[in-house]
Order: sequence, then C-alpha cells, then structure tokens
Amino acid sequence: MADIVQRIGIKAPPSKVYEALATLDGLAGWWTQEVAGDSEPGGVIVFTFRTGEGELKGEMGMQVESLTPNTKVAWRCVEGPDDWLKTEISFTLSEQDGQTIVLFAHRGWSELSEHMAHCTMKWATFLLSLRELVETGTGKPAPRDVKVDNWY
Amino acid sequence: MADIVQRIGIKAPPSKVYEALATLDGLAGWWTQEVAGDSEPGGVIVFTFRTGEGELKGEMGMQVESLTPNTKVAWRCVEGPDDWLKTEISFTLSEQDGQTIVLFAHRGWSELSEHMAHCTMKWATFLLSLRELVETGTGKPAPRDVKVDNWY
Repeated sequence: MADIVQRIGIKAPPSKVYEALATLDGLAGWWTQEVAGDSEPGGVIVFTFRTGEGELKGEMGMQVESLTPNTKVAWRCVEGPDDWLKTEISFTLSEQDGQTIVLFAHRGWSELSEHMAHCTMKWATFLLSLRELVETGTGKPAPRDVKVDNWY
Repeated sequence: MADIVQRIGIKAPPSKVYEALATLDGLAGWWTQEVAGDSEPGGVIVFTFRTGEGELKGEMGMQVESLTPNTKVAWRCVEGPDDWLKTEISFTLSEQDGQTIVLFAHRGWSELSEHMAHCTMKWATFLLSLRELVETGTGKPAPRDVKVDNWY
C-alpha cells in the first residue's frame, strides 16, 4: 500500500476552508466545476472532469465518510479509475500561526505507480487552487486546472 | 518506508531539462539560488535555503549517485534534516507527446510524517519552478520560492 500526504497553509479561518471542502459549491470552486450529488455523510458526490473543449476526462464518485465541522472531511472513492477505487481521501484542518493548516491524505493505493506520481502532482496544484479560492475568491478548478503533464 | 513520487511534463527537449538538473547553474535557477559544491558523480552539492531576509532555513548536502545524460540524475542525501538523511532523490526523464516527462522520486522516508507531507507539497512547487525555468528562462528558487505553509 502507498499513500499520498500533503500539507498546505491557508490564510483564512478553518470555517472558510471547511466550507470549500464540505459543500458542492465550495468543491466546484477548486477541484472541478462539474460537481453533483449529495454532500451529506453517507451520500455520494460525483466529480466530472472535462477538457476545455468539453471532452470527458474522468468521473469520480466519492462517498462522504465523515464530516466534522471546521475540522475534517473524509471520503471513500466508490467510482473512478481502477487504482482509485476504495482509496480514502481526507482533509484535516488545524489552526497554526494564523493559518488554517490542511493536512491532505489520499491513502490506500495498491502500488507506487506512475499514475500515482501524476495524481500527487495534480493534487498539489488542486490544493494550491483551494488556497487561491479561499484567499482570493477564485480557484482553478477543471477545466481551468493547471495541466501537469501529457496525461492532463 | 514511505516514498514521494511526482510526474511533470515540460515543453522542452530532455537536454534542456537535464541541464537544469545536472549543473550548479541549472539547479540555482529552480531549487535554491545558493548552490555550491561538486556536481560530478561522487561529488556533494550543498543547497542552502534562506528566507527573503537572509535567515538560514536549512542546508542539504546531496551526493551525486548517478548522472546519465538526458535520462537520469540521482542523489543521496548526506546532510540535512534527520528525516532526509540517507533518503534518495531521482529525476528520470523520457520524451512523450512532445514533452519531457520528469518522473521525480524522493524515496526512503522512515515514516509518513507531517514533515513528509510538507515536503511533498514543496517538491510540487519546486517541480513547477523547474518547468517555469526551462520553459520561460525564470524559475522560482528560494528565497523566491512559493511558501506552502507555516513551515515555509
């Protein structure tokens, strides 16, 4: 098993960061504009990714495993690429030095693959997009996301 | 043991990317401006990190383990934070779809720590800096690096 972990600080209160992680509107502001489904615990949120020209690149279904206001959001992947299925994603928030620290984890990859390497880089750019959204009001969700390599 | 892997594509020939990874001048353009030492195989390159105000933030010594022109650069950490010592860093280059694909690895962390999460995020921003340097001529090496959290 292999895990991705990343840490980013956002100059805003935890409540603002939590809103961007726990609501469909918030998620549409930094990960992908196309978000649907049920963001309550037990519900499934469907994230659709397209190119700027509208071509479908991927679809992820995330079951909401837990929501702890201003503290933690956790999902389990129930739809998506084979190597994402059953993996777990979480965002744990804390306050330090006037920033909200987001400890991000995407756990349970079956192997340390090149696709995992691509996804690590993509997650970093999406976490920067989350920070931009919360700090400035505008993130870079797909299809306006930063392209990291030839896999998009 | 835990590993960081990341993948980024750069729109330039492998020789240009290799130059940025295998020479002191190249490295000073995207990781930290303060680079000294010997970049030949067996040599140790010393990377010094400071804040914009000149305060020392860290120093890393990397022994050059292998250099394969336009293909691979590998280092072993011989000086630095405790959890970096003896870890191995490599950049493996290939050409795909008109891009040079950099497969980055920082292997051999003793545990999946919060500091590793911070470093994963920092590496992502430095790989984006490497891409900027090669594609535009100007990267974001320390002390002009992107700050990711309260740990710098």
